[in-house]
Amino acid sequence: MALQERAVRTRRAILVAAASVFAEVGFEAATISEILHRADATKGSLYFHFTSKAELAQAVLADQLAAVPAPPPQELMLQQGVDEAFLLAHLLHLGDPVAQGSIRLTVDQGGLHDVLDRRVPMSQWIGHNTRMLGRAREHGELLPHVDVAATARMFVGAFTGVQVLSQVMTQHGDLPERVTDLQRHLMAGVAVPAVLVQLDMAADRGARVYEAALRLRDQGGTCEEIPAVGEARAAG
Amino acid sequence: MALQERAVRTRRAILVAAASVFAEVGFEAATISEILHRADATKGSLYFHFTSKAELAQAVLADQLAAVPAPPPQELMLQQGVDEAFLLAHLLHLGDPVAQGSIRLTVDQGGLHDVLDRRVPMSQWIGHNTRMLGRAREHGELLPHVDVAATARMFVGAFTGVQVLSQVMTQHGDLPERVTDLQRHLMAGVAVPAVLVQLDMAADRGARVYEAALRLRDQGGTCEEIPAVGEARAAG
Repeated sequence: MALQERAVRTRRAILVAAASVFAEVGFEAATISEILHRADATKGSLYFHFTSKAELAQAVLADQLAAVPAPPPQELMLQQGVDEAFLLAHLLHLGDPVAQGSIRLTVDQGGLHDVLDRRVPMSQWIGHNTRMLGRAREHGELLPHVDVAATARMFVGAFTGVQVLSQVMTQHGDLPERVTDLQRHLMAGVAVPAVLVQLDMAADRGARVYEAALRLRDQGGTCEEIPAVGEARAAG
Repeated sequence: MALQERAVRTRRAILVAAASVFAEVGFEAATISEILHRADATKGSLYFHFTSKAELAQAVLADQLAAVPAPPPQELMLQQGVDEAFLLAHLLHLGDPVAQGSIRLTVDQGGLHDVLDRRVPMSQWIGHNTRMLGRAREHGELLPHVDVAATARMFVGAFTGVQVLSQVMTQHGDLPERVTDLQRHLMAGVAVPAVLVQLDMAADRGARVYEAALRLRDQGGTCEEIPAVGEARAAG
């Protein structure tokens, strides 16, 4: 293995280990020694990549959007946006440590001397949703009154809270169903009827999109449509 | 002052002081000594009311819904629900320590040995919204497809996240505007058109409801309608 490739893998292992520790105990209580233990890495290699626990946490935050695997592209932009929400919900539902840790860092407020910039992941999601809704508008999928920027921001806020509530009440056990409730409500207010009736917002959408995203990644990026509920049932 | 009245006031002062400390540093970092200092209370009086920091935090959580002053009753149940959301948003926007501390306790995840039951305030809000939507249904304000229980839960989740996002991005500076965006979107999906057009969801609604709630409390519970935006402007 080339030196550079090894460095990339070590950095990745440290980030994943850090996220899992942040997921369990939060930023303040997380220790470098526990992160090193889980990453099976040395102090030297950690400090080669990150100068402090705060820098490590900020890297986990910066990675939040990129850590969600790309769902297969969809003909409808709104389905693509819905799929990303279901995919993130599925990762949280599975207990994925990177998603859990990164989102806990975003939502937990810091102490008095806190230095984390939680606006980074939030701004990424808002920008991402703004671009998605912008393309949906170009494709004629949006109702005419929709304010793309305000709606993108509201989607991020509403999703954040629905996952907080699901975490508090069921440790993310009911998150897929709660995201279905949310998406149906949100989409009814933004999608033109001809698009709305085509959107798959079933609670098991996240699991199906996740499988397809993994296959897509393993196949090196081949496009593939995910069958809607009825088709999937017919095929199974 | 009677002994019992003094005890009630001391308990209240300790709860308010605790909430303000929790708002600033969170549960883990909060100290009993700082709470005593802010409450100007003795250790003995604190331990007379609460056996531990956890019990004190749980009391702040249990008080969350009751700590929001009752907005003046409205003819439309949905306006009443909207008003409560704007009122809580206004308290957060003002930096009210009880609202800030109680909501931080709810949203921050705990450490490994955490004992707080964050379901208590969430269940209170869900129950409260379920009753409000149930009455709205009886009054014919709801669209026929609305699932009252699921919608009540979604409202709580969505509001929670919109306030988290506003806190992260602007320290609650833009929360009134963000609650307007959210409420307009949510209400369009649940209210019959004749009700929807009557709802006041302007960003300054929270400030107006707050003033009216304080007057209502000072007058010992006299009912009073809050003028809608246009009327308020005309009156001013």
